[in-house]
Amino acid sequence: MKQFINSKENLVTEAIDGMLRTAEGRLARLDGYPHIKVVVRADWDRSRVALVSGGGSGHEPSHAGFVGQGMLTAAVCGEVFASPSVDAVLAGILAVTGKAGCLLIVKNYTGDRLNFGLAAERARAQGLKVNMVVVDDDVALPDLPQPRGVAGTLFVHKIAGALAENGADLDVVTESAERVIDGVVSIGMSLDTCTIPGSPKENRIGPGKAELGLGIHGEAGIEQVDFSTARDAVETVVARLAPSIGSGPHVALLNNLGGATPLEMAVLAEDLVKSRIGDRIRWLVGPAPMMTSLDMRGFSISILPVTEHDEAALMAPAAPWAWPGCRSTGEISVVELPDGLAPIQPIPSINEETRAFVALCCEILMDAEAHLNALDAKSGDGDTGSTLATASKALLDALERLPLADQTQLYRAIGLELSQAMGGSSGVLLAIFFASAGDASASGKDMIGAFKAGLERIQQVGGAKPGDRTMIDALHPALDALPSGLEHAARAARDGADATASITRARAGRASYLPEASLAGHNDPGAEAVALLFEKLLDQG
Amino acid sequence: MKQFINSKENLVTEAIDGMLRTAEGRLARLDGYPHIKVVVRADWDRSRVALVSGGGSGHEPSHAGFVGQGMLTAAVCGEVFASPSVDAVLAGILAVTGKAGCLLIVKNYTGDRLNFGLAAERARAQGLKVNMVVVDDDVALPDLPQPRGVAGTLFVHKIAGALAENGADLDVVTESAERVIDGVVSIGMSLDTCTIPGSPKENRIGPGKAELGLGIHGEAGIEQVDFSTARDAVETVVARLAPSIGSGPHVALLNNLGGATPLEMAVLAEDLVKSRIGDRIRWLVGPAPMMTSLDMRGFSISILPVTEHDEAALMAPAAPWAWPGCRSTGEISVVELPDGLAPIQPIPSINEETRAFVALCCEILMDAEAHLNALDAKSGDGDTGSTLATASKALLDALERLPLADQTQLYRAIGLELSQAMGGSSGVLLAIFFASAGDASASGKDMIGAFKAGLERIQQVGGAKPGDRTMIDALHPALDALPSGLEHAARAARDGADATASITRARAGRASYLPEASLAGHNDPGAEAVALLFEKLLDQG
Repeated sequence: MKQFINSKENLVTEAIDGMLRTAEGRLARLDGYPHIKVVVRADWDRSRVALVSGGGSGHEPSHAGFVGQGMLTAAVCGEVFASPSVDAVLAGILAVTGKAGCLLIVKNYTGDRLNFGLAAERARAQGLKVNMVVVDDDVALPDLPQPRGVAGTLFVHKIAGALAENGADLDVVTESAERVIDGVVSIGMSLDTCTIPGSPKENRIGPGKAELGLGIHGEAGIEQVDFSTARDAVETVVARLAPSIGSGPHVALLNNLGGATPLEMAVLAEDLVKSRIGDRIRWLVGPAPMMTSLDMRGFSISILPVTEHDEAALMAPAAPWAWPGCRSTGEISVVELPDGLAPIQPIPSINEETRAFVALCCEILMDAEAHLNALDAKSGDGDTGSTLATASKALLDALERLPLADQTQLYRAIGLELSQAMGGSSGVLLAIFFASAGDASASGKDMIGAFKAGLERIQQVGGAKPGDRTMIDALHPALDALPSGLEHAARAARDGADATASITRARAGRASYLPEASLAGHNDPGAEAVALLFEKLLDQG
Repeated sequence: MKQFINSKENLVTEAIDGMLRTAEGRLARLDGYPHIKVVVRADWDRSRVALVSGGGSGHEPSHAGFVGQGMLTAAVCGEVFASPSVDAVLAGILAVTGKAGCLLIVKNYTGDRLNFGLAAERARAQGLKVNMVVVDDDVALPDLPQPRGVAGTLFVHKIAGALAENGADLDVVTESAERVIDGVVSIGMSLDTCTIPGSPKENRIGPGKAELGLGIHGEAGIEQVDFSTARDAVETVVARLAPSIGSGPHVALLNNLGGATPLEMAVLAEDLVKSRIGDRIRWLVGPAPMMTSLDMRGFSISILPVTEHDEAALMAPAAPWAWPGCRSTGEISVVELPDGLAPIQPIPSINEETRAFVALCCEILMDAEAHLNALDAKSGDGDTGSTLATASKALLDALERLPLADQTQLYRAIGLELSQAMGGSSGVLLAIFFASAGDASASGKDMIGAFKAGLERIQQVGGAKPGDRTMIDALHPALDALPSGLEHAARAARDGADATASITRARAGRASYLPEASLAGHNDPGAEAVALLFEKLLDQG
């Protein structure tokens, strides 16, 4: 299984170093690599109670990602899914513990309990005050005597961390941690197993199945359940939590086990808020990856009843970025759609000359349908002629409601008609061309100036420039030549259109996806349409 | 492919709602579901330049996750990997744009350019000042005329966002955005494709291969390259960026494309800082998921030269949690290991009576080796006797250096010897037992009191209670009975040990993983060892 690592042996130390590269003096590590991997607050004076947690790696951002003001003082990191050694834990304790003492926050796994436990004894033998709490929030098996510690641990870090930051003594900090541990319940669900570095991936969860009640070390869930939707998944999980949830206000922590997308996690959040316990969830932490199991596509929900006491601690600021904050849940704020979405309908007006000119243009383009289609068929889907003919027909039909006597409004109205009548990119671009020409006309530009403004805008929006084998190759020189007369403009358009036949490397639009051979020797149909339009206007003018 | 969604049709709206549940009044959405999916700042008075971005969904936290003070004013969300409609963009513009105007930040995809472009025209027709910039930071193909917009877009959001927040006018904000776009280059690499909701997963990247130069819509990379390590992956990516990087200070953005673990991303960060361009990377944004491609196991690196001007804007506070901050890179702070890691070596002292007693205990346990092994073999790996015999032998060998005349120091020293001589959980637990007894002795407890303190501690650390089929079942009653004499203690230990034969549901320790049938009818070997010890001490005392 491919992963972005260099070696299994150096994975954890390299990752810790990578994290510390941007610590800006707030964090440090102890000089004990490779066996002692401890991240400590560098902005720490030992004047308050220190909080030390840790365990195996592979749960990032836990635990090193939660070291910082208002949360952990040190994190002791083992190898992936393996408890750190007694010496490593002891080093962590000794590095941060002053007279105020230290609280060890340990997840309920035998290795962690023993190693943290013995390290605590050693620290005590050196005269340090060290308490230890064991988090056992997992309710996957309701009658298990030793429930695992999972993402509910974050509540302990946050609440005890806030109290310690505020100067509470060791007994008070320990009691708060124990109160949280008594109250918090968690359970996880996953659609896939995680990938343990250096090991083949186990595929034990079949199609249509999910694992319920899994831990954070890749161990199997207590059961496989049918999986259909996010909503059902949340209801299944909530059903296991519900018996432990009282009637008061609760905080939920929605943890990404690693591999679920933010999109999925947000859907799960919505389903959680709407679930049968949603009315009791007053605050939400996440969704975010907090206690992951490498890349497991799963989530866990942790629920804690909240006293007034804990509320302030939950909301208190915390330096670690990995803490996503604790926010109150509530109704979604929905704002009315703004006015102005419906396009402004022009007031029709009459100008026979303009009417005749617009009609002539439309007829020219309608007459060119077969020719343009044939040209397009050589390198595209052969519909340029039909697209323009359809749009021209629509414009002809709309002549009665166009503001023919007002150039500015006319351009805008044509843009609007084209955006409704013409599909695809070309419709949008022509709509932009005329809308922009309308704006320019409103600021006093004459027709040529307005069209040049429109041309500039479609170059900006569409990204095409002269020479990119588009209609611009005819329109740009034609507008430049137009002050010298229609004849010059028509010739310039024709020269520009014909030049596209030798542009075999299209740089914008659909033709940019085509092989060079299919472009050589024939004109771009958009440019050809422009050239034809000018030529026929000259013939009939 | 299983995903935590309810339906493809409602995926994006449900996810937006899930995100807004905890917006606490800072964010809102427009009332335009399902077609118009726009997230707007609710704490916005239109007094400054509005920043509107968006595009297809599936890139979360982009773009809605970056709406908030100091970054975007509104995000217009399409369906997964599909551009939002003109109407949706127009609604976003109209909802947030006041006299100061609006900047549209668009990634360079035809659909986005056209739809944002036409919406801009419509908004202009209503008298609003609207500028648009197109981000094209992808350098996957060096000579592509239309490079894609990828994660470098975040720099535009942040820098233009900070200027707009500070009240800069539309021209200044637009210029800053264009300057960033001119300077930023990005490229991505992936080990796997992403899973598009409702579509089968495409497996086009074989073992040992990675795709280089991919976009954020699941499209194939420009080439497949050999993949070996994270370091090589970073060097390959950096080689494509290096030609665009000058000699001055730069900021790098290390983006998780969705499916890489935090562990991998931290390794990539370390490798980036150590790469050939590391000396020019003065700041780093991330690693974090910012512009994802659903669950793609990949990353992208974006690099921007930083002027003094932009530095302040990059560092300015921003409300959206998804923005991980911009931090200076530097040397890792490494702190010396604390004193006290080497255990305090006791000062040897002589007490013949104690020496004889300790030696007797050791000999009793050594004599019991075969019996205890046989007992353990019935339900375990048959080594309890050998483990205790080895530890006893080590203790006998250590007698000369033990502080035999000082009970407190003796307990601590025995704990230390056992932790070094005995492997496994039992060694750690006995070490904790004696260390804790030493502490209790130091505070004035007699032997029985000290041992009771040790027993209490190993129950806390090990999680076992009386009745859990462990050595505690013999030790606990023995210590209770000891004040009445060794005879009573021995009988209590024996009764306790024998009672374990009928405990078939072990609740702690290794036996908790064993089937009930393998436990019935024979004593727990740890409890048996305690009983034997007391009985033989009685015989020989």
